[in-house]
Amino acid sequence: MILPVSAGERAGTSPYVSITTDFGAAYTGICAGVVARIAPTARVQVLSDEVSKYAVVEGALLLEQALPHLPVGVHLAVVDPGVGTLRHPVAVRTGRGDFLVGPDNGLLVPAAEALGGVAEARILDNPGLRLPALSSTFHGRDLFAPAAAHLANGVPLGEFGPELRPSPLEIPEPVPGEGELSVAVLYPDDFGSLILGAFPRDLAAVFGPLEYGTALDVAGTRVRWAETFGDVAEGEPLLFADSSGRLALGVNLGSAAARFGLSAGRTVTLRHAG
Amino acid sequence: MILPVSAGERAGTSPYVSITTDFGAAYTGICAGVVARIAPTARVQVLSDEVSKYAVVEGALLLEQALPHLPVGVHLAVVDPGVGTLRHPVAVRTGRGDFLVGPDNGLLVPAAEALGGVAEARILDNPGLRLPALSSTFHGRDLFAPAAAHLANGVPLGEFGPELRPSPLEIPEPVPGEGELSVAVLYPDDFGSLILGAFPRDLAAVFGPLEYGTALDVAGTRVRWAETFGDVAEGEPLLFADSSGRLALGVNLGSAAARFGLSAGRTVTLRHAG
Amino acid sequence: MILPVSAGERAGTSPYVSITTDFGAAYTGICAGVVARIAPTARVQVLSDEVSKYAVVEGALLLEQALPHLPVGVHLAVVDPGVGTLRHPVAVRTGRGDFLVGPDNGLLVPAAEALGGVAEARILDNPGLRLPALSSTFHGRDLFAPAAAHLANGVPLGEFGPELRPSPLEIPEPVPGEGELSVAVLYPDDFGSLILGAFPRDLAAVFGPLEYGTALDVAGTRVRWAETFGDVAEGEPLLFADSSGRLALGVNLGSAAARFGLSAGRTVTLRHAG
Repeated sequence: MILPVSAGERAGTSPYVSITTDFGAAYTGICAGVVARIAPTARVQVLSDEVSKYAVVEGALLLEQALPHLPVGVHLAVVDPGVGTLRHPVAVRTGRGDFLVGPDNGLLVPAAEALGGVAEARILDNPGLRLPALSSTFHGRDLFAPAAAHLANGVPLGEFGPELRPSPLEIPEPVPGEGELSVAVLYPDDFGSLILGAFPRDLAAVFGPLEYGTALDVAGTRVRWAETFGDVAEGEPLLFADSSGRLALGVNLGSAAARFGLSAGRTVTLRHAG
Repeated sequence: MILPVSAGERAGTSPYVSITTDFGAAYTGICAGVVARIAPTARVQVLSDEVSKYAVVEGALLLEQALPHLPVGVHLAVVDPGVGTLRHPVAVRTGRGDFLVGPDNGLLVPAAEALGGVAEARILDNPGLRLPALSSTFHGRDLFAPAAAHLANGVPLGEFGPELRPSPLEIPEPVPGEGELSVAVLYPDDFGSLILGAFPRDLAAVFGPLEYGTALDVAGTRVRWAETFGDVAEGEPLLFADSSGRLALGVNLGSAAARFGLSAGRTVTLRHAG
Repeated sequence: MILPVSAGERAGTSPYVSITTDFGAAYTGICAGVVARIAPTARVQVLSDEVSKYAVVEGALLLEQALPHLPVGVHLAVVDPGVGTLRHPVAVRTGRGDFLVGPDNGLLVPAAEALGGVAEARILDNPGLRLPALSSTFHGRDLFAPAAAHLANGVPLGEFGPELRPSPLEIPEPVPGEGELSVAVLYPDDFGSLILGAFPRDLAAVFGPLEYGTALDVAGTRVRWAETFGDVAEGEPLLFADSSGRLALGVNLGSAAARFGLSAGRTVTLRHAG
């Protein structure tokens, strides 16, 4: 869902820059400072400095979920296991009018789709739009943050470098079977809920329409399909549609990651409870 | 203590919105983005995204301690074990002129008292002042952040919904005995100090006036009543008046939570050391 | 490296205040709120609230690395194992025109050197430029944040108190030996890389010019001297020049702190691999 862009956003208040990384506070703070220095009128907000280390899928899905709710602006994102290697640095203009800046490893693509699609994408190879010295380990500071700041200042995307077609993000698809659905665990959220690689429509395709309260078997545990945490007892597991729209395993007032012993990259199978 | 409100604050610079949650960075960042989108001229600051999960008392006492030091503004707070259930969402106007926005589970009440009391409280049930779709698990994003932003924009409190009387916060009271004082551990702070449910006046009521340096017995450990950490040796425990005004157990350059093996909800008894 | 100060920075947009602490989110948020209240037009940014507890060297080297990339402004930093004792609170004006505010325990000195040196330093003992009540445990809130805010508002440094000469920071020097170099582990960064107390020039002084790919023995482990993480296989250790300019031990897509079992304060010896 893209919220309509208001007249105020079109008229333009001060430019907005969000930052999302797996850096923790300090390195993210340096990037925010670089943006504030080059673009002193920008509103700079850290969306998250707590993406799990090197977790491109987690970062991509956070951006996909979050950016449609944020102001139209420049969104800097760095989860970059390949820093210093040959992946391209990119900036993407979206249908909504945002600029997404980060490594071309799939991180930006789901968010771009959620914001009206990729309207234009450029490689960031203009040395005049970087810091004077480019380190081999901190492109967030030396390359991506300056690019985001210059875009916030109104530098045209075309000045950054040649066009490219962004690399897609690989997300495991759900696998429907005979009365069962196998899905990947994409990431645990901050409450320990496990976000799954499937949507309610995938559930309905296998099991038909499910009433809230129906029990399913998930990795040997009886789990109720529920609307929200408070619909099950404290400590009980539930399967629900997360605020991102995806299926998720949760535990009311507890952690599904701990309860199920599952982490990103694992697969679980959902079946009718016996 | 309420600091006097300056002329500048009354005249109004750009509106100020603070955010306090148990969400971690990402979900808090989404809330901040929602506020920034609806209220583009607001100064948005995360007070804390690290309240312990579901710890309403900890969140409430952080707000009580912090808000009198923050600008007069809108303070969004979400620690909400009952999301999706029947507790009301509320906004409270304080005597100082702030608006506090969050779940009606006691979270906002001590801070409101510290800011001159509850002048008016309203249920947030106007669908026109929420996001178009209300999820069942993320009211911070869909309901509370939009309300905070609209208040920052000057929407009158009366437009949000009917009046209510906020539910109080239940905090365990200290229990004085024969030469002893039993107190609850309210929460550990970020340094591992244990904030206790009593004030220096409660200590004086049982033990009379205590000179700094006097030793007490706390859960079997000899602990000095001290003014500050540096008054005891490195690694030594102390009982002190925390910056919130409450009694607290600390360890100089260490963690009282680790040393005493205590956590929120436990009770400790203070006695004269033998 | 000090980036040149732009005309915009000299002309002055809204004043910039950065905050660096070992406080975690909540206490840092209170400090940010105090600054926002006293200096309502300032841009306030948390550089880091995650410095390791009481780790003055780590905080000092973060500031040294970060501040040259941040806007010219006021930089509040509190890592203060001696709060409530006799160390002085100070503000330092740098050659670049920044003000650094914090305890006089060495925390501010490397950053001041990186910003053109200490031009002037003053003890913060003017009670009119603090909060009305000074606690014994939270000088960040009561003393340092107000000083930073007043400096952002343009209060002259001379009004804060008498001049002093800041105390230096003690950092262990590298010790060159016969075909070996002993260096201190200064701190682990957020990725688990171990920042070492030596520069590439110290390496060259012992081993001569080293080609990338050369193997060294570090604490019994074979480690390649490399330009960046991607130059070694996943899970392999490397010795590299960190983005701060110092030598560092890393592991590609892993944690050197975990791999080597080393923490701040330990010493390692680098030798030619056999």
